[in-house]
Amino acid sequence: MAILERSDTGAVTHLRMNAPDRLNALSDEMLAALQAELDALREDRSIRAVILSGAGKAFCAGHDLKQMTAGRQAEDGGRAYFKNLFDRCARMMMSVQSLPQPVIAQVHGIATAAGCQLVATCDLAVAAEGTRFGVNGVNIGLFCSTPMVALSRNIPRKQAFEMLTTGQFIEANRAVELGLVNRAVPPEALEQETRSLAETLAAKLGSVVKIGKQAFYQQLQMPLEQAYAYTGDVMVENMLYRETEEGISAFIEKRDPNWSQ
Amino acid sequence: MAILERSDTGAVTHLRMNAPDRLNALSDEMLAALQAELDALREDRSIRAVILSGAGKAFCAGHDLKQMTAGRQAEDGGRAYFKNLFDRCARMMMSVQSLPQPVIAQVHGIATAAGCQLVATCDLAVAAEGTRFGVNGVNIGLFCSTPMVALSRNIPRKQAFEMLTTGQFIEANRAVELGLVNRAVPPEALEQETRSLAETLAAKLGSVVKIGKQAFYQQLQMPLEQAYAYTGDVMVENMLYRETEEGISAFIEKRDPNWSQ
Amino acid sequence: MAILERSDTGAVTHLRMNAPDRLNALSDEMLAALQAELDALREDRSIRAVILSGAGKAFCAGHDLKQMTAGRQAEDGGRAYFKNLFDRCARMMMSVQSLPQPVIAQVHGIATAAGCQLVATCDLAVAAEGTRFGVNGVNIGLFCSTPMVALSRNIPRKQAFEMLTTGQFIEANRAVELGLVNRAVPPEALEQETRSLAETLAAKLGSVVKIGKQAFYQQLQMPLEQAYAYTGDVMVENMLYRETEEGISAFIEKRDPNWSQ
Repeated sequence: MAILERSDTGAVTHLRMNAPDRLNALSDEMLAALQAELDALREDRSIRAVILSGAGKAFCAGHDLKQMTAGRQAEDGGRAYFKNLFDRCARMMMSVQSLPQPVIAQVHGIATAAGCQLVATCDLAVAAEGTRFGVNGVNIGLFCSTPMVALSRNIPRKQAFEMLTTGQFIEANRAVELGLVNRAVPPEALEQETRSLAETLAAKLGSVVKIGKQAFYQQLQMPLEQAYAYTGDVMVENMLYRETEEGISAFIEKRDPNWSQ
Repeated sequence: MAILERSDTGAVTHLRMNAPDRLNALSDEMLAALQAELDALREDRSIRAVILSGAGKAFCAGHDLKQMTAGRQAEDGGRAYFKNLFDRCARMMMSVQSLPQPVIAQVHGIATAAGCQLVATCDLAVAAEGTRFGVNGVNIGLFCSTPMVALSRNIPRKQAFEMLTTGQFIEANRAVELGLVNRAVPPEALEQETRSLAETLAAKLGSVVKIGKQAFYQQLQMPLEQAYAYTGDVMVENMLYRETEEGISAFIEKRDPNWSQ
Repeated sequence: MAILERSDTGAVTHLRMNAPDRLNALSDEMLAALQAELDALREDRSIRAVILSGAGKAFCAGHDLKQMTAGRQAEDGGRAYFKNLFDRCARMMMSVQSLPQPVIAQVHGIATAAGCQLVATCDLAVAAEGTRFGVNGVNIGLFCSTPMVALSRNIPRKQAFEMLTTGQFIEANRAVELGLVNRAVPPEALEQETRSLAETLAAKLGSVVKIGKQAFYQQLQMPLEQAYAYTGDVMVENMLYRETEEGISAFIEKRDPNWSQ
């Protein structure tokens, strides 16, 4: 069994982390597998939406602590390994965000530490009711410093600080209130709801969602005037797409667009 | 009938977009009319609050797609026209934010694409229950890249991304939850509620609201230490206003301020 | 009676502002007392959490307007005094944020203007139901420009603008919804709930909470890639703490950590 299973249905790819006995921990192997698939998907124009889920009882429980502990055997006590590990993890997270296709986390069970970071990093998230989210590294003496980068860009400041310093969990419905996930649904509806959302996205023009997603994160980091100059240019290019011309014409003429894509 | 109607009552100006047959689309004419009124209001010290609404069934349905399509006839396929159009639109939006007086969107029916951007751009917004908000350009192949600049500075990240990529609408009560509008009220109360809010603002010292509004958006874009240095200077100037001295004295002496303004 | 009372219980310090007849206004004396205690706590490794509360009917009603008015007697009309006052106030606020230990506001009665800023500045806040929060300086002609720096980094933009320009108050439950406080509890439970939260924090490794708090505010001001590079380095250092090694080992071995701290 592969540590990361990929199954394509139409324009939707489903990536399933498959190390249930380790609660899909982000081990060296899992990080490498995720990075490899993300790199492959980046160039794959036939795929227009990605679902990310976990096999077994949990979505993802964060880093692989046993593997990290083994890394301490090195002469430098693990320093070089840890540095490399956090670099690879951050690179994978940023690859989710820079992937042209939108990525939807399909979350159940628990999503903790770097697993919670992964949910926060995905563009969208659907969670089963009862799912528990935490950045609880503080409880074992390892503050969730990298996970908080993603978390604090999803939810308000005081609520992020509380999760980080108390190590306490929140449930799916609270995660919806705070903005960490888009929807909480009954566990038996999770897979269908997530797929339905992915198919909604996949039905759009892939080239348009791609420029939109890229522009979304770019402009968030710009001051207002710069953000408008940049997105204005994006709009001009978008207007000149042949498929966009057809989409707008169809709308004006009250008919369905004739899109080749 | 003017495409933009202005009516003043006391210190409150009401601007009503008046192209109901086009759902108050932001055509070249509408953008020019809005820009002209904003430029005039900027210098008008008698006006201390602005209401912006739309005539007919909708607040505003975004850009004028027929006009944009006509622009494609140019030799360059419309590139220069589109560039100029998005520049003018962004300039108008930034003029709302840089206007000394607060601007309240009075929203009903629908507010889509650049119409939703306009709501997000106003300092405050009151919506009729049932109003639908969307950034649905993705459905016709034109991602709402400029609208998202304003939207993503009003509501949480994942919820903005969902609206932008699914093209789905949210209703007024959800818009309140997300922070896009301040209040949702029954349709029959919309006008009165909005006016009441405008009159509350207009009853303050105009000079003070002006420096406050300007400082609000300036400091949001600064790192913390710089934001405090800047707003500290604003506070010093504010303390030295004669009207402020009177306001504070009146408060200490438990009487109404004797303000000439 | 000291204007600021400090009482330590284990690793938790409780600072109580004690000028109830002035609603714990941030007078020159109160600012100096707060600054002195914050400076002392910064070096105090025995303290791992701080509670900040107010004696009497209110948490804090902002600046001391009588003292400020007296400042107008100077030859420059108070300009130098006001400049110095806002500098000292901002320095105290930033000292709360840069303090290694987390600071929890225990809020009751009212928290207005710089008092509301103080709540927004604390890392966490617990409020008694019925507590009223406002940035109402606009009502007396003094826009809450410095308070808005903290407020607008806690709650959504339109809701902050509304509070600042209308001067209207919100109650504790609304403050929870907006993200300004973490929890609203019955008044009779306020002290116990706040202490319980402080003890939860104090039971963590102090060194780890310290690097986490510092990194939290630092990374919030960075673009994504820089934030990951920075927090990755923090994680590496954290992994190399002896106490963290023990914490992780204990977790893997399913036993309690043997922490000397």
